[in-house]
Amino acid sequence: MSADVPSPDDQIFELEADVVLTSRARIARNLSGSPFVHRSDPEQCQTVAEEIRTAAECVDLPGSPVWIDLAEISNRHRRVLYERHIISRQHAEGHHPRGVIVDEDETTSIMVNEEDHVRMHTIAQGLQTDHCFDQVRDIDRSLETKLPWAFHQRLGYLAACPSNVGTGVRFSAMLHLPALSLTGDLKKVQNAANDLKLAVRGYYGEGSESSGNFFQVSNQVTLGCSEEELLEQFQQVILPGIIQYERSARRALLRQDRVGIEDRVRRDIAVLRSARLIKVDECMRRLSTVRLGVCLGILDDVDLRHINSLFVLIQPGHLHERVGDALSPREALVTRADTVREMLA
Amino acid sequence: MSADVPSPDDQIFELEADVVLTSRARIARNLSGSPFVHRSDPEQCQTVAEEIRTAAECVDLPGSPVWIDLAEISNRHRRVLYERHIISRQHAEGHHPRGVIVDEDETTSIMVNEEDHVRMHTIAQGLQTDHCFDQVRDIDRSLETKLPWAFHQRLGYLAACPSNVGTGVRFSAMLHLPALSLTGDLKKVQNAANDLKLAVRGYYGEGSESSGNFFQVSNQVTLGCSEEELLEQFQQVILPGIIQYERSARRALLRQDRVGIEDRVRRDIAVLRSARLIKVDECMRRLSTVRLGVCLGILDDVDLRHINSLFVLIQPGHLHERVGDALSPREALVTRADTVREMLA
Repeated sequence: MSADVPSPDDQIFELEADVVLTSRARIARNLSGSPFVHRSDPEQCQTVAEEIRTAAECVDLPGSPVWIDLAEISNRHRRVLYERHIISRQHAEGHHPRGVIVDEDETTSIMVNEEDHVRMHTIAQGLQTDHCFDQVRDIDRSLETKLPWAFHQRLGYLAACPSNVGTGVRFSAMLHLPALSLTGDLKKVQNAANDLKLAVRGYYGEGSESSGNFFQVSNQVTLGCSEEELLEQFQQVILPGIIQYERSARRALLRQDRVGIEDRVRRDIAVLRSARLIKVDECMRRLSTVRLGVCLGILDDVDLRHINSLFVLIQPGHLHERVGDALSPREALVTRADTVREMLA
Repeated sequence: MSADVPSPDDQIFELEADVVLTSRARIARNLSGSPFVHRSDPEQCQTVAEEIRTAAECVDLPGSPVWIDLAEISNRHRRVLYERHIISRQHAEGHHPRGVIVDEDETTSIMVNEEDHVRMHTIAQGLQTDHCFDQVRDIDRSLETKLPWAFHQRLGYLAACPSNVGTGVRFSAMLHLPALSLTGDLKKVQNAANDLKLAVRGYYGEGSESSGNFFQVSNQVTLGCSEEELLEQFQQVILPGIIQYERSARRALLRQDRVGIEDRVRRDIAVLRSARLIKVDECMRRLSTVRLGVCLGILDDVDLRHINSLFVLIQPGHLHERVGDALSPREALVTRADTVREMLA
């Protein structure tokens, strides 16, 4: 890079955080002898939930986890858990007995009676799929001392959806791909991902739109490979390939149109620091450009962690939570703009 | 106004400068015994130009005026004179012998061989049509001691276009009407202006588009009334009516959507202070909103004079002049953005 665009802080490249927002690992499990969730009546769901909750309280899970009964909390609270990626949309919107066990740091969550009886998740900043897998496997090992997982000699662990049968393990990473979006090369990544049997989803997982140029990439098949093989392929081969592709698109943009990129970045941070009303889509889009600007070293007075937090804090449930009261659509625009200005001041 | 939007500086309302950018008065005259410009050959134009230039040098005009031969200067220089409203587009683009006499302050200009042999103009900040008329009449009186104006007993002063026959006087004001543009009430002003036999034109006069919500309003008929009657009607009746209409639209906007207006104003000043590339239309539009914001007291760290100057300084000829070299379209975007950032820093 030339002198007029300073080098970004090295921390930005630690754990590939310039491209990888978060890594996740999850394990899906079901209780032997109980019907799958979609075939259970409310009473069966309640029995399963209590069995799992009791087991979780008996084993020593890290981070002082607590049980949250999703049927007992408000819509707004469920919405906040969803926006924080602690529960899925499907889990938030269900009507049967269900809950989630979540630790203090919100790095570990165990959804109970989502698609499967148990879905253990761990999340970490940057590229740390291996670390996430170590953690979630420990939780699985603890729980299986108390709970009889449904297991088939030939197929492996059973799951409600065939794509999860086998290891029940899924790795995923939330990737920020603004340069590939700008250059129009995202389609190539999606095609390559399909060939590699990866799923590419939006910011809120299955069925969600891409927003802020975030794409959740995950392995789709858990049958026929060991967890270690899946993990190695995902973390050592697939993700580094996409990361390098995005980085090379970023370098090309800077080389071909440094002023144009700087113009976009500086306009977007200026608008975010000044707006009095802002919609969520516009906000995600401008935050995405600003995140790119920080990673390219164009903005040196913006903390990447603040930007990363804002993608969550500007969501509707979090705005309601901040004000502690119902917000009209107009008030939400004002509160979102206030939140962004304060964080970027 | 409530406490959260401070009252703007009283200076903004001096000479109605919140709505009136500039006032102008002009007198059109032709030499008796010489054909009108559009019926003259180049030699006749040359003779007329020399006669007028000599006369102007013999009388004592204020402000140390100089003669500029438009056939002798560069395209870029002609463009700059046009952008500063010293000459018209038609005058800049002509091919016959012609020139302009302009004083040090650029408040007085005498176009020679534009549509008429002589077009004397004076310009002033804010609403000062009477002051402009006093000045231009003094120039006319000085010149007529040396030059034989074409005059008809019954019709008055003769001119190339019938609309200028009579007094040859025209008053105009450049009005900034952003609130009436926003509320969609501009059409009503235009209809009323037509009924009152006023012309409403864009930022660069006849045939130009409105830009930055500026509208040049001028009287169209100079026949059948004295100059004093025309002036009184224009300055005491017509302009105050439009000014009050715009001010009441501004108050209504603040009352109905204070946050929305503040949002627009703060976004636009932020973008102007941050952009690295900017087109002239976008720049005019955002400067217009910022001018409104200053007049409403929303922005208290922006000098109205800087904004007023920028409407001229961001035009293509001025950008070329600043750099002193030909600019590619892309370089013009960069230079415009630089100019704006420096002025608003």
